[in-house]
Amino acid sequence: MTQKIAILGPGLLGTSIALAARRVGDARLAMWARRPEVIGEIRERGIVDQISGDIAAVVADATTIVFCVPIGAMPGLARTIEPLIPAGSLVTDVGSVKASIVAELGTIFRERGRFIGSHPMAGSDKTGHASASADLFSGRVCILTPDDSTAPDVVGEVSEFWEMLGCRIRCVLPAEHDEIVALISHLPHLLAATLMNTVSARNPGALDFYGPGFFDHTRVASGDPGMWAEILGENRAAVRANAEAMIEKLRDITKLLDRETTMNEFLTRAKALRDSLRP
Amino acid sequence: MTQKIAILGPGLLGTSIALAARRVGDARLAMWARRPEVIGEIRERGIVDQISGDIAAVVADATTIVFCVPIGAMPGLARTIEPLIPAGSLVTDVGSVKASIVAELGTIFRERGRFIGSHPMAGSDKTGHASASADLFSGRVCILTPDDSTAPDVVGEVSEFWEMLGCRIRCVLPAEHDEIVALISHLPHLLAATLMNTVSARNPGALDFYGPGFFDHTRVASGDPGMWAEILGENRAAVRANAEAMIEKLRDITKLLDRETTMNEFLTRAKALRDSLRP
Repeated sequence: MTQKIAILGPGLLGTSIALAARRVGDARLAMWARRPEVIGEIRERGIVDQISGDIAAVVADATTIVFCVPIGAMPGLARTIEPLIPAGSLVTDVGSVKASIVAELGTIFRERGRFIGSHPMAGSDKTGHASASADLFSGRVCILTPDDSTAPDVVGEVSEFWEMLGCRIRCVLPAEHDEIVALISHLPHLLAATLMNTVSARNPGALDFYGPGFFDHTRVASGDPGMWAEILGENRAAVRANAEAMIEKLRDITKLLDRETTMNEFLTRAKALRDSLRP
Repeated sequence: MTQKIAILGPGLLGTSIALAARRVGDARLAMWARRPEVIGEIRERGIVDQISGDIAAVVADATTIVFCVPIGAMPGLARTIEPLIPAGSLVTDVGSVKASIVAELGTIFRERGRFIGSHPMAGSDKTGHASASADLFSGRVCILTPDDSTAPDVVGEVSEFWEMLGCRIRCVLPAEHDEIVALISHLPHLLAATLMNTVSARNPGALDFYGPGFFDHTRVASGDPGMWAEILGENRAAVRANAEAMIEKLRDITKLLDRETTMNEFLTRAKALRDSLRP
C-alpha cells in the first residue's frame, strides 16, 4: 500500500517536508491549509498531490500525519482530527516545545493513532511556503521525544520518516528536550532580539557600521515574532533559568575585562567549544 | 610615480589587503613579517612584490603604510619605522580600537608621515594569510577616525585607498568609534563567548542538538582569543557600559516571558531593526 503523508500546515516546515519527501519517495502527499489564497498558491506550485481546507479529506487514509501549525493551535486541531484518522496511523508534530504538547497530543491520540513528538532543528528566519526548501532538513538533527506511553515501534518508524528527509536522529524525554532547546535555541533567540533592542536604545546610528559578525550573530532576531513569543512563553521556566545563568556569567566576565590572561582563557574555552561544531 | 603600499603584518587583514590591491591596481606591494616560515609561505604564494623581515627595506619609498599587527604591537613598531619612512607618506592602521591608538600613532607620526586611523569592518573567525581573500572588503564599511590633528587631504586619500579595495567609507571621531564598535562588535563577541561557556557549564551535552541558528549566532566566538582579549581590554569601559545595558534589558524582558503580547512587541521591534540590515 502506498504511504500517504498528511501535512497539516503550509508554512516553511510543512512545505519543506513536502518538497523533501517528493524528492526521495513515492508517498502520496496531502496538505491542509486554512487560507484560500495559500491553498491556491500551493496548488499552483504542484508541490503536493492533494491540497485542501477540508481536514477530513486530507487525513483520510493517511499513514503518517505531521502537525506543522503553531504550537497553540495543535491541541484544538488534534481533537478535531482524532475521530477522523485511520486507526494506527503514525502522528507527529514539529513543535519547538515538547513537554506540554506531548502530554496533550499523547492523551488525545491514546486510542486511535500512535503519537510521538518530533522537533527538527531546522528552520529559517524566513517564513511561509515560498521560503521552503527540499534541503532544509539535510544533515540537521531531529529530536524525538518518546515517553512512557510511546510504543517502541513508533520510534523506529518516525526515525525512518525523518531520516528519509535527511535528518540525523536524537532521542530525549520531552522535559529534557525543553531544557536543551531553552539553552541552545530559545536563549540565543532572546539574546539576539535583546541585542538589537539594546543597540537601538543606546545608539541607533551604530547600525550604520556593523560588519559580518554582527549580521550573523543577530540573524535569528528576524524570525517570526508571533511564533517566537509563543515558544518563549511556553518554555518560560527553562528559558528564564538559562537567561539568569547567562546574566550571571556575563556580569562576572565583564568585571574581568582588564585581566587579559583571564579573558584569553575565557575566550579560548569558548573558541574550543565553538570550533567543535560543524555547519 | 608608482605607488608603493607597505603592509606591516602578514595576517588575515594584511594579506587580504594585498590580494585586493593586486586585483585592482598596479601599486607595488611590500609586506613585513617577522616569522621566517611565514615569510617563506608568502613568498611562495607570490602575493606581494616584496616580502621581508627587514622593516627598513619594506617601508623604503612607501607611499602608503598600513599597520596590520595586533594593537599592542603598533606603538613600538611605529617608533621603529618613524625615522625610516619617506616624509609625507600616508600612514594608517586596521586596529579594532581607535582612541588610544590614534593618540599614540598620531603623536609618533606628527613630524614625518600623515597618520589617520582606519577600521575596516571586515574579518573572519579564521586567522592567518591562508584564510585571506581579495573579496574580504567588498561592500564592507571602513570607519575612518580623523581628529583635530588630521590634515583634510588625508581623509580623501585614505578613503580612495579603502574604496579601491571595495569598502564604503564612514567617518567618526576616535572616541565615537570606540563607543560604536563596543556596541556592535565587542559586545556581540563577548555575548557569543559567554553563551558558549554558559552552555558548557549548564549542559555540555546540549551541543549535540544545535541547529543553524545557534551555529550562526555563535560564529564569532571562534575568533582569535589573544586578539580579542586585547581588544576587549583596550575598550573595556565602553564594553562594560554596553554589557550592563544589555544585562538590564535581558533581565527586564526575562520577567515578561509569560506576557505574549509584550513579547510579541519586543520581538517585532527587534525583527524590524534586523530586517533593515543587508548582508
